[in-house]
Amino acid sequence: DPFFGHLITAMVTPFTKDDRVDYDAFEALAVKLVDEGNDSLVVSGTTGETSTLEDHEKEGLVRAAKSAVGDRAKVIAGTSTNHTSHDLEMARRAERAGADGQLVVTPYYNKPSQDGVLAHYQAVADAADLPLMIYDIPGRSGIAIETETILRLAEHPHIMSLKDAKNDITATTEVLTKTELEVYSGDDQNVLAWMAMGAVGVVSVTSHVACPHFRRMIDALLNYDLKEARIVHGELGPVIRGMMTRVQGAVSSKLVLDWLGFPINADVRLPLVQANAHEKELVLADLREAGWNL
Amino acid sequence: DPFFGHLITAMVTPFTKDDRVDYDAFEALAVKLVDEGNDSLVVSGTTGETSTLEDHEKEGLVRAAKSAVGDRAKVIAGTSTNHTSHDLEMARRAERAGADGQLVVTPYYNKPSQDGVLAHYQAVADAADLPLMIYDIPGRSGIAIETETILRLAEHPHIMSLKDAKNDITATTEVLTKTELEVYSGDDQNVLAWMAMGAVGVVSVTSHVACPHFRRMIDALLNYDLKEARIVHGELGPVIRGMMTRVQGAVSSKLVLDWLGFPINADVRLPLVQANAHEKELVLADLREAGWNL
Amino acid sequence: DPFFGHLITAMVTPFTKDDRVDYDAFEALAVKLVDEGNDSLVVSGTTGETSTLEDHEKEGLVRAAKSAVGDRAKVIAGTSTNHTSHDLEMARRAERAGADGQLVVTPYYNKPSQDGVLAHYQAVADAADLPLMIYDIPGRSGIAIETETILRLAEHPHIMSLKDAKNDITATTEVLTKTELEVYSGDDQNVLAWMAMGAVGVVSVTSHVACPHFRRMIDALLNYDLKEARIVHGELGPVIRGMMTRVQGAVSSKLVLDWLGFPINADVRLPLVQANAHEKELVLADLREAGWNL
Amino acid sequence: DPFFGHLITAMVTPFTKDDRVDYDAFEALAVKLVDEGNDSLVVSGTTGETSTLEDHEKEGLVRAAKSAVGDRAKVIAGTSTNHTSHDLEMARRAERAGADGQLVVTPYYNKPSQDGVLAHYQAVADAADLPLMIYDIPGRSGIAIETETILRLAEHPHIMSLKDAKNDITATTEVLTKTELEVYSGDDQNVLAWMAMGAVGVVSVTSHVACPHFRRMIDALLNYDLKEARIVHGELGPVIRGMMTRVQGAVSSKLVLDWLGFPINADVRLPLVQANAHEKELVLADLREAGWNL
Repeated sequence: DPFFGHLITAMVTPFTKDDRVDYDAFEALAVKLVDEGNDSLVVSGTTGETSTLEDHEKEGLVRAAKSAVGDRAKVIAGTSTNHTSHDLEMARRAERAGADGQLVVTPYYNKPSQDGVLAHYQAVADAADLPLMIYDIPGRSGIAIETETILRLAEHPHIMSLKDAKNDITATTEVLTKTELEVYSGDDQNVLAWMAMGAVGVVSVTSHVACPHFRRMIDALLNYDLKEARIVHGELGPVIRGMMTRVQGAVSSKLVLDWLGFPINADVRLPLVQANAHEKELVLADLREAGWNL
Repeated sequence: DPFFGHLITAMVTPFTKDDRVDYDAFEALAVKLVDEGNDSLVVSGTTGETSTLEDHEKEGLVRAAKSAVGDRAKVIAGTSTNHTSHDLEMARRAERAGADGQLVVTPYYNKPSQDGVLAHYQAVADAADLPLMIYDIPGRSGIAIETETILRLAEHPHIMSLKDAKNDITATTEVLTKTELEVYSGDDQNVLAWMAMGAVGVVSVTSHVACPHFRRMIDALLNYDLKEARIVHGELGPVIRGMMTRVQGAVSSKLVLDWLGFPINADVRLPLVQANAHEKELVLADLREAGWNL
Repeated sequence: DPFFGHLITAMVTPFTKDDRVDYDAFEALAVKLVDEGNDSLVVSGTTGETSTLEDHEKEGLVRAAKSAVGDRAKVIAGTSTNHTSHDLEMARRAERAGADGQLVVTPYYNKPSQDGVLAHYQAVADAADLPLMIYDIPGRSGIAIETETILRLAEHPHIMSLKDAKNDITATTEVLTKTELEVYSGDDQNVLAWMAMGAVGVVSVTSHVACPHFRRMIDALLNYDLKEARIVHGELGPVIRGMMTRVQGAVSSKLVLDWLGFPINADVRLPLVQANAHEKELVLADLREAGWNL
Repeated sequence: DPFFGHLITAMVTPFTKDDRVDYDAFEALAVKLVDEGNDSLVVSGTTGETSTLEDHEKEGLVRAAKSAVGDRAKVIAGTSTNHTSHDLEMARRAERAGADGQLVVTPYYNKPSQDGVLAHYQAVADAADLPLMIYDIPGRSGIAIETETILRLAEHPHIMSLKDAKNDITATTEVLTKTELEVYSGDDQNVLAWMAMGAVGVVSVTSHVACPHFRRMIDALLNYDLKEARIVHGELGPVIRGMMTRVQGAVSSKLVLDWLGFPINADVRLPLVQANAHEKELVLADLREAGWNL
């Protein structure tokens, strides 16, 4: 079995009305997600609004998640920014706080060369005794991790998995063929295609509100039941459109969790803002197209 | 079973040294491809250098293919350009020549609006009593066919299938969910992912030299044997790189067929040119990486 | 002075209601455009719906234009497709019909390598004793002409100018620095920027309806009067948006010429279609934003 | 005259061998740049490795720059990240440290909606009594600022200028036409084109090593001397290629300053790394093509 399992949700960070982390809501959400079939949880990742969390909050989220789910699921800490030396410290703090792994995104905005990407990942992987998941998402980072760089990173004993949001079938095929990395789709729409090619699962956002669907699809794929997987994939289409293309995933996840009755405040921190009326209508129309009773 | 089957090769057009269509080599190639497992053959498609064929040559290729393979495979005529009224005539000529279907590409270069795309396809579909396969390839045409347009085209009784080279999982999912179109991957690298999602097969170029691989992968997928399909997908990776990314597919197909001992002249018509020495080395290195003994 | 002058319109081809070329309207349009300041006219170019013209019509358009404007302007024949041997014949026919030059687009759709692009242009340039303008427009052709290829083409005695619609300031700078090619902006919005860098003029579509503006801007730039050029550039902004981004330029040019009272039938040939009601509203709003009284 | 003048360098941050900010080298560099004609200096911007500076270092750089150049040039503090509340504090600290303005980049990585972009800029602009320059660079930020958003931001009394690295002539034209914003090219290759259209100057990286060239080009443009401006633009072509396309600008600037004899340590902070041997060769070849004696 893959170290982090198959279904992983990149969790939102709920805030109170006065803008503090709402650890109670966060723990309740963690429990709900594990009850619904998650094998691991990402905390303080992109969808967790990592960019606007304080360091102590990131550490607090790791502790809260572990306290809530114990050994029922692994907790993966989003430890990284585009500042390597700061990330080393965050990796160590995550380890001390009890994280089971760390998710490390390609440095964004400052656009290192591939030599720099390699050095960054090696330094962070060395910093803590934590299984590390590479996160390749050029649409956010401004640069891709080239396949040659991934092949070299795969040799590091701590680097075990890849969250792949590059949408490049050729590159992914080469990684799957030439390395032992456990590959996760980092794009909710690509799960069926990626797992068919040999990816082990997904790090999902839509799973905040559609865990049972993803669990069904993943279990079908693990059983090579393509028929069932296709049915769920088709059902998820408009849901994923609503959650991922109308507003940022952190915004939509809090919004729709609230609509579905999970007690959560939909506030996000600037520069993110809540969905406006028009955006809400679009999300609602997508979910209704999926047959949801909202 | 899908009307055109699962494995389709978009055939090259061999030329003699004095630049006439080499019908003998073409028929021998058609027989070889059907022997190796093709269900249908595309003639005078993009890889058949349709842009530089005369109308009578296109018609001759349909007759030659039918004469060579009889009822053992269906023959799909590449009938289309970016000039609708000319295409209507070519559709009728293909029908009279015995074609079993037609492949119609999005008008390229002149960039019609979606209204124009719709009108173009409807006119061509009306022109002949031939099952029609839409070909959506924005990288060549300069425009994509929007999903909404495809949904409307799917209502036409002659429009039965889609050759999908758009590399857009979201769009393909919607077509698979909302229409009865038989979808073929139009990108050799995407076959496993696309068939997992519900595509019925591939219109391939690499199959000129790797039919048995594609047949194995397709049969595995039809049997839901993802393990076997992944093995073949991995083996095909460097082959597809060599055939599709170093030079144009018509150029590489003739070159490698020749290397493999199939009697064919590697000449192509201008503006295409044969691979230069450097390009040949790249192709060779890719095929050797795949373990081919060249 | 540059061989083809500074202001060139890529003319539409008017059709009669029964779909024949309307030579009378075409000649009247040619006269109008030269009266308004054009130095040369492109006939049977992209905007002339070259893709859906018959060969004899292309030849007829050259004769008609020469007959209409005599020595008052040069006539540049759009001779090219993606089929080299056919283009050689069209180059010779254009020369016999009296063309003063030819405009040759990068082969589209069949995606030759740069070796092929080079061979194509050299063959066409050799075919007729006509000054040749290269047309680099990757958004339509699917491939760009690399700078290295342009540098080599610039050595051919017939190749005198470049219609540059690549929108790549770095590449254009290198061409301007290293060759004697006369460079024309092939993008109406880029004229001011391109001429500031050393381009000699524009091959325009919007000039069907805004010749006096382009003439004013060009004359200002030739006099280094940036202040005046900027005023006209600003005025042209919404006009160019209306003409170039709402529908294809051939469609908008016929439509707006008709609105402005020039006697022309707005029909285009399939796969192009006339603007629908919504598109017309958008064009109208743009022109009204520019202060046009429509 | 524009508030920040015409020529602005986005300064690197020199480090000592033991990785502290080298304020002495920084001040010497500031003096050199002002001596060579800069009107303003950006400190702790992207090229200043803002992502890997501590907050106290950013404040220290503002104080050091002001101390070095006094009233001879304005100091613009790069105050922003993708975390709005942190940026408010940094804006206030920059103001207290004596900055003359602030440069605020579009929030990167977390991809706010345009509502979020608007709210972010308004909050930062409200936070300090400092003239604010918007920085629109979708290639780093992952999102563009839409023209409609810029038009609204232009109404804020503190928002005075735009550093435009979007390379979209249509959008820039609309901003120049409809607002009073002082627009600077944020792309060294675009200065001539952008200033011809009405931009007031450049925020440059290449100016670390080519100030006299930029000064000559800018002065020529202010005098409408396009001939002279084109000569300098052509000379700068290979220099800009070497400084901006081979390695990150911070890396190349330190490297080439050192080559030119300015006393600076070429170290950068991870995830950036120094140029490797191959990259150095490329930069060197570019500068030699420009006639530099290196």
